[in-house]
Order: sequence, then structure tokens, then C-alpha cells
Amino acid sequence: MEEPAPRPVRSALAWLVGVSQVLGLASVVLTGVWMGHYRGGFAWDGSAQEFNVHPLCMVLGMVFLHGDAILVYRVFRNEAKRNVKVLHGVIHLLALVISIIGLVAVFDFHRAAKFPDMYSLHSWCGMATIVLFCIQWVMGLMFFLFPAASSWLRASYLPIHVFSGLVLLVMAIGTCLLGITEKLLFNIMKTYSAFDPEGVLANILGMVLVCFGVVLGYLITREEYRRPPNPEEESLSVHFKTLTEGGSPASP
Amino acid sequence: MEEPAPRPVRSALAWLVGVSQVLGLASVVLTGVWMGHYRGGFAWDGSAQEFNVHPLCMVLGMVFLHGDAILVYRVFRNEAKRNVKVLHGVIHLLALVISIIGLVAVFDFHRAAKFPDMYSLHSWCGMATIVLFCIQWVMGLMFFLFPAASSWLRASYLPIHVFSGLVLLVMAIGTCLLGITEKLLFNIMKTYSAFDPEGVLANILGMVLVCFGVVLGYLITREEYRRPPNPEEESLSVHFKTLTEGGSPASP
Repeated sequence: MEEPAPRPVRSALAWLVGVSQVLGLASVVLTGVWMGHYRGGFAWDGSAQEFNVHPLCMVLGMVFLHGDAILVYRVFRNEAKRNVKVLHGVIHLLALVISIIGLVAVFDFHRAAKFPDMYSLHSWCGMATIVLFCIQWVMGLMFFLFPAASSWLRASYLPIHVFSGLVLLVMAIGTCLLGITEKLLFNIMKTYSAFDPEGVLANILGMVLVCFGVVLGYLITREEYRRPPNPEEESLSVHFKTLTEGGSPASP
Repeated sequence: MEEPAPRPVRSALAWLVGVSQVLGLASVVLTGVWMGHYRGGFAWDGSAQEFNVHPLCMVLGMVFLHGDAILVYRVFRNEAKRNVKVLHGVIHLLALVISIIGLVAVFDFHRAAKFPDMYSLHSWCGMATIVLFCIQWVMGLMFFLFPAASSWLRASYLPIHVFSGLVLLVMAIGTCLLGITEKLLFNIMKTYSAFDPEGVLANILGMVLVCFGVVLGYLITREEYRRPPNPEEESLSVHFKTLTEGGSPASP
């Protein structure tokens, strides 16, 4: 049952959103420190420093911004729905652009170093995540921002879109953990088991990413943090469909 | 709004449960084939063959049985709730016992081979998952099977228990993927990038585990597959609490 959010719910939501932002930013900073301090920094010349752009972009785009794009529906739960939708789409687009830069970085580095592509579980999971993310973004655009589908179809697709978004966030985080493990075993296999500081830092990054996913998942799935239904908006939405499609407002 | 499940919902549920079982069994079989055919089979003598018991037990216990223990609430959604609860607890206990055998196997192998423990991201994620799984099991036993808490406390804890169960399943799957990557890089780093059949098999295992998680997640989170509320059971449950606690049936 939906009802206006009482004070403790709003307060818990604010705290959890705060925690999620600390975890999300911490994951980006830890990735930057790992690549910057332990792996020689960043460049765009086909070197190992170009590879370093890859983890930073993927954690920033596919995890932090992806998570925050989902979170706008909880943070701005009392704002006009159309504005929140546009923000959701724009942050996702930014996440996609940054992730594509990250992808180009790793393929470029592989080509320069003559390393083969797409053989590891990390690359399979990552490619599946990116491809599905693109499909999800285009479907979202068609269904919700420039609705090309009927109200009934949109209502049927919405729970699938929400579920897929969370699955993709989890897949992105899982892929990051696989990438962390690969990178450590490629670079510091001999010292990793002696609790090398670089290995410990990367492990902490992995756990921070897991915690970010858990907090995001909790915020997204808890009933009381959902956007309260707005009958006025719903009727406006139906009215908009009636005007553009010439259908009946009484259609499902 | 809850209502008796219509025929298409029951049919989709049956199909999805079927698909989940095929994926779950496939993941166990693929692990068995990987360890049996490519890694020299199984033993209990501190050798690499003892290590091979670890992935098989973890995939069987922490993923397949863990997932099926959650699924009983969807498969037996019209059976008496108490029986389903007992089944849920028993399958989880079996999952825990098998997982502990798997844990003993890897620690035993590490001790015999003088390998250090608990340095990798896989081990950190895995230990966190097992410890939280134990806490979740004990809490579930206390709250729901031998209810030591008030009805209000049980009702408040239920969504956290459900959310944590799904998080733990996802963490278990993520930890398996990390284990697959570690094992491949330890054993076949040089041939992995040439699409060595062992590497491809292990990658497919990883993708099957991801698909199992996605289907399970969908089955668990979709509103229409939930157990329909049974007012008779609810009142009996309150009545049981009243009898055992001497409280009022009207208490929350």
C-alpha cells in the first residue's frame, strides 16, 4: 500500500542515498589511486597507461553513473516525472559514452600490444553487459521518453525495464570484480598472496563495489522508497497518449 | 493487488522454474566435467584433486541448492506455509553442509601445498558470503521456524530476510565467477587467450551461472509469482503467537 512518506522513511532514504554516494565515489577514487599510483597513471598512446583508462571509465560509467541514473527516481521522487525521466536518460547516456571510451582504451591497448581480445570471462560478461545496456537504453527511450508504444505495452514493459536495470548494474559490478582479479593476477601474481598493498587496495575496491551494489539494490527494491503514485500525472499521461494516438482514454 | 494466479501466470512460472533447473543442473554438471575431465578428478588427500572438491561443492551448495531453497516459495506457493518453511530451512541447511565440505577442501589443500589463505578478492567475497549465509540461516530459524520474535518484528524482518537471501545468492554467483577466473589464470594463463577448450568450458560455466541468477532473480521479484496471501494462515499464525506468548490477537 502506498502512502505519503513519513519522516523516518525520508530520513532513512536520505542516509542510504548518502552512504551510496560515499561508496560510489570511493570506488571511483580507489580505482584512480590504483591506476594512478601503482600502475603508472594515464595516457592515450596504446601503452599500459592507456589500458589504465579502462578500469577508471568502467567503474565511473557502468557502476557509479549507472547506479546514480537509477537512483534519481528515489532522490527526486516528488519532482515532475517527465523531468526525472529526462535526467535518468541523460545520466545513462553519459554513462554509456564514458564506458565506450573505456572500451576503446582496452581494445586500443590490446591492438598495440598484440594481445588477443574477448577470450576471458571478464570480457564475455563485460561485452554482454554493454550490449544489453545499449538495448536497454534504446528501449527505454522508445517506451518512456518518446513513447512509441501503447500505454498497456509501456505498463507491461516497465517492471522488465526496472528489473533489467538492476541486473545490468549487478553484472557491471561483477564484471569489475573479474577485471580486478585478472589485473592483479596478470601484474602481481607472485606478491598478491603476501598481502601486497596494491592487492589489498584492489580487494578493498572490490568490496566497496559490492557494498555499493547492495545499498543501491536495497534502495531500489524497498517498497517505501518508491515514487508515490500521482493520479494527476497518470491521467495526463493517458491524455497525452489519447492526443497523439487518437485512442480512448479508457484504454488500459 | 493479489489475486488467484491465472493460467498464463502458472504456465510462465512452470516454464521459468524449468529453465532455472536446467541452468542450475548444467552449472553443476559443467563444474564436474571441468574438474573431472580437465583437472584430474576428485580425491581427499591434500592434493590438487582435493581442491577440485571445492568448486563442485560451492556451485552445488551455495548456488544451486541455495537458489532452489529460495524457489520453494514459488514452486509450492499453494502448499501449507509451515511445510514450505521447513523445506526452505532444510535445503538451506543441506546447502550449508555441502558448502562447508567445499571450504574444508580448499583450506586443506592450501595447508598441504603451503599456499597462503584469504588474500584474494575471491576469498574475501566467499568468506563474507558464507558468514552472512550462516547469520541469515540462524536468523531465519529464530524468526520464522521457531518464532522467538513478536509478529510485528517478524513482519519487519521478512523483507530484509528476502532481500538478503537474494543478495547472498548474487554474491555466491559473483564469487564463483571470481573463482573460475582465478583457477584459469593459475592453471592455463598461457593458453587461455588462444581459446583453450578448458577456458571456453569454464567461461560457459560462468555465463550459465549468470543466467541462473537472472532467472532466479526474476522469479523471486515478480509480483505475480508471489505466494498468494492466505487470511486463514495469517490468523492461525497470530493465534499461535497469542497462545505461546499470552498476547492479544489484535496486537500488530
